[in-house]
Amino acid sequence: MLRFSIPMESAKPNVFLYDTTLRDGTQGEGISFTVSSKVRLAEKLDSFGIDYIEGGWPGSNPRDMAFFDQIRKVTLKRAKVAAFGSTRRASNAVEVDPQVKLLLEAETPVVTIFGKTWLMHVTEVLRTTAEENIKMIEDTVRYLKDNGREVVYDAEHFFDGYKDNPKFALATLEAAQRGGAEFLTLCDTNGGTLVGEVQNIVGAVQKHFPKTKIGMHCHNDAGLGVAVTLAGVEAGAVMVQGTMNGYGERIGNANLTTVIPNLSLKMGYPMACAEHISRLRDLSLFTAELANQRHDSKQPYVGASAFVHKGGVHADAVNKVKHSYEHIAPEAVGNRTRVVVSDMSGRASIMMKAQEMGLDVESKSPAMTHFLDELKQLEFRGYEYEAADASFKLLIRRYVNQKADPFKVLNYKVIDEYGEWTDDVTAEATVKVKIGENIYHVVDESTGPVGALDGALRKALSHEFPQVNDVRLTDFKVRILDGQKGVKAIIRVQVESTDGVNIWGTVGASDDIIEASLEALRDAFLYKIALDHGETE
Amino acid sequence: MLRFSIPMESAKPNVFLYDTTLRDGTQGEGISFTVSSKVRLAEKLDSFGIDYIEGGWPGSNPRDMAFFDQIRKVTLKRAKVAAFGSTRRASNAVEVDPQVKLLLEAETPVVTIFGKTWLMHVTEVLRTTAEENIKMIEDTVRYLKDNGREVVYDAEHFFDGYKDNPKFALATLEAAQRGGAEFLTLCDTNGGTLVGEVQNIVGAVQKHFPKTKIGMHCHNDAGLGVAVTLAGVEAGAVMVQGTMNGYGERIGNANLTTVIPNLSLKMGYPMACAEHISRLRDLSLFTAELANQRHDSKQPYVGASAFVHKGGVHADAVNKVKHSYEHIAPEAVGNRTRVVVSDMSGRASIMMKAQEMGLDVESKSPAMTHFLDELKQLEFRGYEYEAADASFKLLIRRYVNQKADPFKVLNYKVIDEYGEWTDDVTAEATVKVKIGENIYHVVDESTGPVGALDGALRKALSHEFPQVNDVRLTDFKVRILDGQKGVKAIIRVQVESTDGVNIWGTVGASDDIIEASLEALRDAFLYKIALDHGETE
Repeated sequence: MLRFSIPMESAKPNVFLYDTTLRDGTQGEGISFTVSSKVRLAEKLDSFGIDYIEGGWPGSNPRDMAFFDQIRKVTLKRAKVAAFGSTRRASNAVEVDPQVKLLLEAETPVVTIFGKTWLMHVTEVLRTTAEENIKMIEDTVRYLKDNGREVVYDAEHFFDGYKDNPKFALATLEAAQRGGAEFLTLCDTNGGTLVGEVQNIVGAVQKHFPKTKIGMHCHNDAGLGVAVTLAGVEAGAVMVQGTMNGYGERIGNANLTTVIPNLSLKMGYPMACAEHISRLRDLSLFTAELANQRHDSKQPYVGASAFVHKGGVHADAVNKVKHSYEHIAPEAVGNRTRVVVSDMSGRASIMMKAQEMGLDVESKSPAMTHFLDELKQLEFRGYEYEAADASFKLLIRRYVNQKADPFKVLNYKVIDEYGEWTDDVTAEATVKVKIGENIYHVVDESTGPVGALDGALRKALSHEFPQVNDVRLTDFKVRILDGQKGVKAIIRVQVESTDGVNIWGTVGASDDIIEASLEALRDAFLYKIALDHGETE
Repeated sequence: MLRFSIPMESAKPNVFLYDTTLRDGTQGEGISFTVSSKVRLAEKLDSFGIDYIEGGWPGSNPRDMAFFDQIRKVTLKRAKVAAFGSTRRASNAVEVDPQVKLLLEAETPVVTIFGKTWLMHVTEVLRTTAEENIKMIEDTVRYLKDNGREVVYDAEHFFDGYKDNPKFALATLEAAQRGGAEFLTLCDTNGGTLVGEVQNIVGAVQKHFPKTKIGMHCHNDAGLGVAVTLAGVEAGAVMVQGTMNGYGERIGNANLTTVIPNLSLKMGYPMACAEHISRLRDLSLFTAELANQRHDSKQPYVGASAFVHKGGVHADAVNKVKHSYEHIAPEAVGNRTRVVVSDMSGRASIMMKAQEMGLDVESKSPAMTHFLDELKQLEFRGYEYEAADASFKLLIRRYVNQKADPFKVLNYKVIDEYGEWTDDVTAEATVKVKIGENIYHVVDESTGPVGALDGALRKALSHEFPQVNDVRLTDFKVRILDGQKGVKAIIRVQVESTDGVNIWGTVGASDDIIEASLEALRDAFLYKIALDHGETE
């Protein structure tokens, strides 16, 4: 039954990928790149097989021009670098427009300019006439062409403009075409257009310009950034603009890490990067790191949760038939199946988890049986290993591989005090830690008990394990486990730590929040020490 | 030019909303709810206007059955509660199938059962025959109908199954229809189906079952969860299953906080919650707090970044023409335009919140202005009132109605100690509390510092307010607010309490976890005292 399957050898046109992470992506809240990061990301995008890289808007900030100065010295394999800007101002001849001058000074092979499609924007925002707007588009495209540039014309607010006045919207595209633009890009600038509207409008544009290459530039404000991009391609567009991880203004741009596998793996469109799609997750992580953003675990295809199975029915089925609960093979995008250990886990999911970590454990061995018993006890007492891989690996090391922990906390004491007169809290922690035959008894203070314990533990451990000072806590969460029992119920603490390279999660559980915190902190340091001894992978 | 605009008065069918946050949502990594949080969320969903609330899978874990026991005692305005489960096992007659028995014991008006559509799953995973699978579906639906339930049939892997073998896939739906199912829900269980496929397949199903109500249950693995849901509705489906904030397995379920405004505000489908859509952001934040999840700022419509403008061109244009860079009016979903980076609440949203709680506050009064200033300070220091209604009401009492708190905590001290020899932790807390002119200086101990503080506070208060002994803590959650800063960042504690009749949430924030806990506990007791004086409603 092949009715709905995708023919692998198709006559579909090649799709050009146009990445604007370095320009539109930086409009996202909290997103910025240093100049050297911009260059590194451009090189990475090039080696992945991206066709066009929009590097910035010359003049909008000093970093963008510095990027163009540097990228000119780099030999890229395939990608063409584009500078982005607007058409000339209404008041200027194009030859003397300062912004157009900067676009040429960027010395890029490609220039992308945007112009107004929506009449309301022309009259209310630009405060000029429809006729002048048309001239601004044609003049600017032609001038850039005459200066040897490949020109991509971005029709801002195309869909809103077309819905308002299709005749005027098409006239702006005709102006860009007369000027000589290689691509006419239809922008859903406000991100609110629906799939059916895009199907109809791109179809109409395609009919009007049967020989011109059409592009799509979409945003995600209605949660449809990817869907409308795909709809545009199906209606005839051959260029896709978007950003890595969907970074961009407001809710973000069409996410290329989702668009690419959909177009290539599922819809069968040829593209230059097709052979590198197994490096997609790597590219996504790399971009997040350069942008100093937490990588979104819920990102389609490339997120850490994309192929995760929580114990029970699904994990069991995936074990039986690999694609029973996976829409593609995770390896195709450089991802992998993960099984998380939850209170519904059986032996099957534990074994899968151990295998996934590359641990050589035999399902029927006595150590494994002992470990499973121990694990059930621990889960009953409130530990949860779903987001605490590091604590789980330490458990396996202890119970299955039977290695002793390199240190032990013998005792601790925390004093936390608030006084009305000072209106201030002070926390002091003392810990006694045994490392081999040595005992370290130290004290530290902080604004809170967890900070004080963390400081005291570091002090004690750094005598023999100075690497603990590289560990930084990045997240700290607390849950009470059985709401019915109130404050005497079990408290679970989840800690996330990093040493700048690795990120790991640990867990502690106790009826005392301080003890639970101490356990999670202790595991975070134990894991760092094990990591440095190459014991955990 | 109305060609693509949406007619406001349309003949479109009503869409039923089916929320499965409490069941499928909890399959998401890191998502879990206490029983009392489940009840609170169900009440909130009901008052928002959701039609069906799937509460859990009886027997899969102890919490789900406890939820059904409690929700039965609650009078909901509109929503019908559904219990979820599978068809009988191949080896059992339906009358003796233990899982089906549990479904009836949940005593819900609606039961939703899933069955297999994909032949490969029948033979490889269930390891039974096509014929037996058909019987399992029909038997189970009919048995539940005979027992007076409204039955929603969820056809698992419907799209993959249909692509593999449309005849068998339709035969499974026919079985459910023969059994008497009210809804046939088409599930894209693996989340990989494309928009065009859904359009074709739902169209075909609709043709085959012209008189049966069709539902959609989609996942977001291809980044199309919302798009395929909308495509299904346009092709004839009248029920939408999804979760708040898109929580759910792997990448998550179709996000109802995106689906609802798309269907209602943009596509003109009538739905029961239409009049409450301006409370959508509030509902989304409430759900995130109960799930102890960071609210995703990039969530369409309801995220903090949804209508943010990073200054410059767009902010200026938005100033000139409000809808120039906004796809809808943010207020329509309870959100707002932000130009500068700030999370502070505006007067309008506070007023909305106060009105929602039935509080009579005047927008322009000096007390209200003072209150808003205070609130901005508090939010800046880490307090958040989305799920802490009680603390918010206490604030209004203090600042708007200018009533003094009936007690004050002058100082406290906590000592928490662990010793290797006893292998035990002890926590001792002393508090000095002022009530009127009296001062009570007491000490208590517990297994942890929060319990010790709680005990000491009760001891001190019960001299004059014995009702505090009726208060029971039902949930306790802690978040660190700025992950980058590590343990010295602000810590927010959310406490949920009950006196057996009412349930209320309170909040505390500090760089000291003990101080933040004390504040949340203090508010919990203050609220109970105010409740008994009839001062808060």
